[in-house]
Amino acid sequence: MRAIFFNGDLQYTTDYPDPVRQPGEALIRPHLVGICNTDLEITRGYMNFRGVLGHEFVGTVVASDDPSWQGKRVVGEINAACRRCPTCLRGDVSHCPQRTTLGIYRRDGAMADLFTLPEACLHEVPASVSDEAAVFTEPLAAALEIVEQSHIRPTERVAVVGDGKLGAMIVQVLRLTGCELTLIGRHPERWDVYRQQGITCVRSTDLPGTLFDVVVDCTGNPSGLNIARQIIRPRGRLILKSTFAAETQLNLSMVVVDEIQLIGSRCGPFAPALRLLERGLIATTPLISARYPLAEGLQAFAAAPGQLKVLLSV
Amino acid sequence: MRAIFFNGDLQYTTDYPDPVRQPGEALIRPHLVGICNTDLEITRGYMNFRGVLGHEFVGTVVASDDPSWQGKRVVGEINAACRRCPTCLRGDVSHCPQRTTLGIYRRDGAMADLFTLPEACLHEVPASVSDEAAVFTEPLAAALEIVEQSHIRPTERVAVVGDGKLGAMIVQVLRLTGCELTLIGRHPERWDVYRQQGITCVRSTDLPGTLFDVVVDCTGNPSGLNIARQIIRPRGRLILKSTFAAETQLNLSMVVVDEIQLIGSRCGPFAPALRLLERGLIATTPLISARYPLAEGLQAFAAAPGQLKVLLSV
Ligand SMILES: [Zn+2]
Ligand SMILES: [Zn+2]
Ligand SMILES: [Zn+2]
Ligand SMILES: [Zn+2]
Repeated sequence: MRAIFFNGDLQYTTDYPDPVRQPGEALIRPHLVGICNTDLEITRGYMNFRGVLGHEFVGTVVASDDPSWQGKRVVGEINAACRRCPTCLRGDVSHCPQRTTLGIYRRDGAMADLFTLPEACLHEVPASVSDEAAVFTEPLAAALEIVEQSHIRPTERVAVVGDGKLGAMIVQVLRLTGCELTLIGRHPERWDVYRQQGITCVRSTDLPGTLFDVVVDCTGNPSGLNIARQIIRPRGRLILKSTFAAETQLNLSMVVVDEIQLIGSRCGPFAPALRLLERGLIATTPLISARYPLAEGLQAFAAAPGQLKVLLSV
Repeated sequence: MRAIFFNGDLQYTTDYPDPVRQPGEALIRPHLVGICNTDLEITRGYMNFRGVLGHEFVGTVVASDDPSWQGKRVVGEINAACRRCPTCLRGDVSHCPQRTTLGIYRRDGAMADLFTLPEACLHEVPASVSDEAAVFTEPLAAALEIVEQSHIRPTERVAVVGDGKLGAMIVQVLRLTGCELTLIGRHPERWDVYRQQGITCVRSTDLPGTLFDVVVDCTGNPSGLNIARQIIRPRGRLILKSTFAAETQLNLSMVVVDEIQLIGSRCGPFAPALRLLERGLIATTPLISARYPLAEGLQAFAAAPGQLKVLLSV
């Protein structure tokens, strides 16, 4: 089958071996797959991953143990957990120590003609949600993890540092809380859609003088964390949405002296992401920068840095 | 001046004495005033109030100490606090023991040609928010108090009991959290707008078998609390938005045995309510049942029970 895979180099092939469906898994034919910053980082060596890339998808189930899934249009949670260990049994399946992760860790991803995922990871897409919207479910769920973990009050002042792909989802989720919301970024050409949504957009060189109750860093680089530290109030909450942050040394004086709470935030809940898409509350069309057929996947990856969402049509 | 006032009887007059503006107060000419359930309860003796009714308004400032308010289109928080007592100084101005409340307690309300309110209570209405939307700021703020007080997670199952005026605001605020949302009511003729917004609507005789994490009672009558108790899960949160509940005896076994948290919720924050209206996230037009000129205020009050929002044009 056709696939985009990473093997030290990023490659496109037409003869990747077909996936073998394990018990409890569904075989899925993807329609659209998004390129995310994690994919770009994998091509630079992140996670030491080898295999087919792609974890943001919408597709159709072509085979499954449970016949009710067959033919269904689905999106899927990316962590395939054992569902038996103590971590899984207390409900934290996305932290299962035996997990594999679609297109990221020990499991081939969705940039191929076919791929597999446990049926337990699947969510049916409501008919009113287009493929072009549904492909944003995974990053939207990641944005929703912020409000799943933290109580963001309507009266709070919130800043999001980073106007990239994930920032686009995060500001759109946070605006729904009614909070006073500022996006700090360096791509003013992207800001029209956010400004129409009532979000203040500024460059990091034009930071407001007042401090924020909550700051989300989703820049993916060390400068984001530096900006976040400058604008958060004592006793504020700093939410880390950068994969980068995992490799960063942080002087803990801000935590100890200023009582700032650090909150790491990763994958999030799919069901409410689909509900927000179905309710028409998230703009996705303006976020699609380009669309390539799977066979032009290498060009798509070359074009993706500095773009918002680049999609592959399978 | 003209006014609708309660004096044991509800009356309309053309020669109510003009209000006398005190230091720090603004003199306001209302454009629209909403009739709320509290107004209907006052006409049945609630709060023992005597004076001009009306606390949901949008209007124009015609005189003020601070000249920058003059000519501004405003809405206003209804509690006029001393801003000096310990309660006020710790930020709880809506609980000030010396407070007066617009059209509810020791302060004439907005159903008149003119009325006064402290400048500290005023919020300018953004140009893009119409009078017909802005008049919903006060009940929308009351709905927002729920998410100001409580962390409603996107993955939670939430039920709102009561499809009246306040319920209409509450479901619209709660749907923005992404939560699974059910409205329990007895006016199916009102549900089209909510269903289009992705909200499940059922009669209390068709309650789902599964329990809810969070239940909001805004029915204004004892049956609402009874329904709420039947559908809340152990360790759930029961949010009381009924003025009625203040006069209710509750068997505390649900609190002690089932560890249910009871959360009383009253007035809420205006600034985020205006932000949600400005962001176009709250539908108000379908909630307006009728509109009467001030001179027909008695007819408006007669028509209001069983309606959604009835507005008076001044
Ligand atoms: Zn991703
Ligand atoms: Zn496990
Ligand atoms: Zn009211
Ligand atoms: Zn006070």
